[in-house]
Amino acid sequence: LVVEYDGTHYYGWQVQDHKPTIQQKLEEAARAVTGRKLRVVGAGRTDRGVHALGQVAHVRAALKLGPQQLLRALNANLPDDICVREVTRAPMGFHAQYRARRKLYRYSILNDPLPSPQLRRTHWHMPYPLKLARMRQAAVLLRGRHNFRSFQRAASSHNGSSVRRITSLNVSRRGKQITIDIAGNGFLYNMARGIVGLLVEVGRARIDLKDVKRILSGKDRRLAPKCAPAKGLNLVHIHY
Amino acid sequence: LVVEYDGTHYYGWQVQDHKPTIQQKLEEAARAVTGRKLRVVGAGRTDRGVHALGQVAHVRAALKLGPQQLLRALNANLPDDICVREVTRAPMGFHAQYRARRKLYRYSILNDPLPSPQLRRTHWHMPYPLKLARMRQAAVLLRGRHNFRSFQRAASSHNGSSVRRITSLNVSRRGKQITIDIAGNGFLYNMARGIVGLLVEVGRARIDLKDVKRILSGKDRRLAPKCAPAKGLNLVHIHY
Repeated sequence: LVVEYDGTHYYGWQVQDHKPTIQQKLEEAARAVTGRKLRVVGAGRTDRGVHALGQVAHVRAALKLGPQQLLRALNANLPDDICVREVTRAPMGFHAQYRARRKLYRYSILNDPLPSPQLRRTHWHMPYPLKLARMRQAAVLLRGRHNFRSFQRAASSHNGSSVRRITSLNVSRRGKQITIDIAGNGFLYNMARGIVGLLVEVGRARIDLKDVKRILSGKDRRLAPKCAPAKGLNLVHIHY
Repeated sequence: LVVEYDGTHYYGWQVQDHKPTIQQKLEEAARAVTGRKLRVVGAGRTDRGVHALGQVAHVRAALKLGPQQLLRALNANLPDDICVREVTRAPMGFHAQYRARRKLYRYSILNDPLPSPQLRRTHWHMPYPLKLARMRQAAVLLRGRHNFRSFQRAASSHNGSSVRRITSLNVSRRGKQITIDIAGNGFLYNMARGIVGLLVEVGRARIDLKDVKRILSGKDRRLAPKCAPAKGLNLVHIHY
């Protein structure tokens, strides 16, 4: 399944007790359609308030419905802030999480003294001037293969390696809107928002390039600035 | 005042009993700031659910606050779906409604078989294919000075002339999104949405160009198709 959602009113992807989540809504829809309790496995957890244009999930089930029928039936059982955009039969052995090779996130910033009512759910409002040239220099330092432990949420129970590869990291401006596109082979918990938080501090000239190197090599979350708010983040695409 | 708003949760611009409106919120903010009951006069009423990037309003008052202080004070008293973007001292005799020379509206359509959670508050979801060439031919017929009574809400209590001049009317596509920009020297009640409703019917090939001429010259609301939904409409700019 390829799934789009407006994450504003959800406690993220993963099922939680007594709190609405995207996974829960999809599993409820799958149950309403098939009469069975199916597990919907996502490519990755998105945090509370994060959006997706192209989240991917898989379901293991023998169904009589074809992909197009299943798509329509699921959407008929989903609220209007979640939409299944594609359903395809996956090859044997497919796994939405383990087979993901590259993920593309987009982060949106409104860089203007005044907030915007029309962009308030999807953009981080940053009233201070940002120097894009500085942000791009910092982006160069973050691209490639690094240990990103400094960008991983401290309380994260993630075991194993914190080494990931950022394959592209681009900062662009169009009028008052700044877009940061981040692609990588994997993301630690809070990593995308941590990178944006750092780039913005560099853009505000509160952190310089030497500090970026120090933060990255320090491998300690406490060195890095606050991560950017969830509402600006959008999971755009996942390559398999 | 230049005012941006997300109209989703409002019953339009104009003050009504027991229903939240943009004018009401601005007048409440003005009262909180000045301690006085001031009338906030808008350039035009926007309907329930219509958005604005550049609504204009005036207030007549002798205040000690300068324009920038007033802007900050008003915004501190407004909800996050309304923002005053500019405050300037108006010249003597200025009137937000009567001195408006040209208004620019933008209408946004999502032209895709599936709805989009992220665009659902700002785009009309139109799942059927639309032929832009046809819509543009129809737009040519609507441009210029005409009696637009066929695009005026039937129940409208508008007196006086229904003659208005559409100075530009452009239809463009970018991916799945279609944008219709309409500028004119004035708009009758529901006229912008009526024009979009007609263009979409032409784009679906349910109405042809001969019918467009007939509808326009018929001067009767019952001849025209249903008007487009409010959520796709945005009042972008007003020239004085």
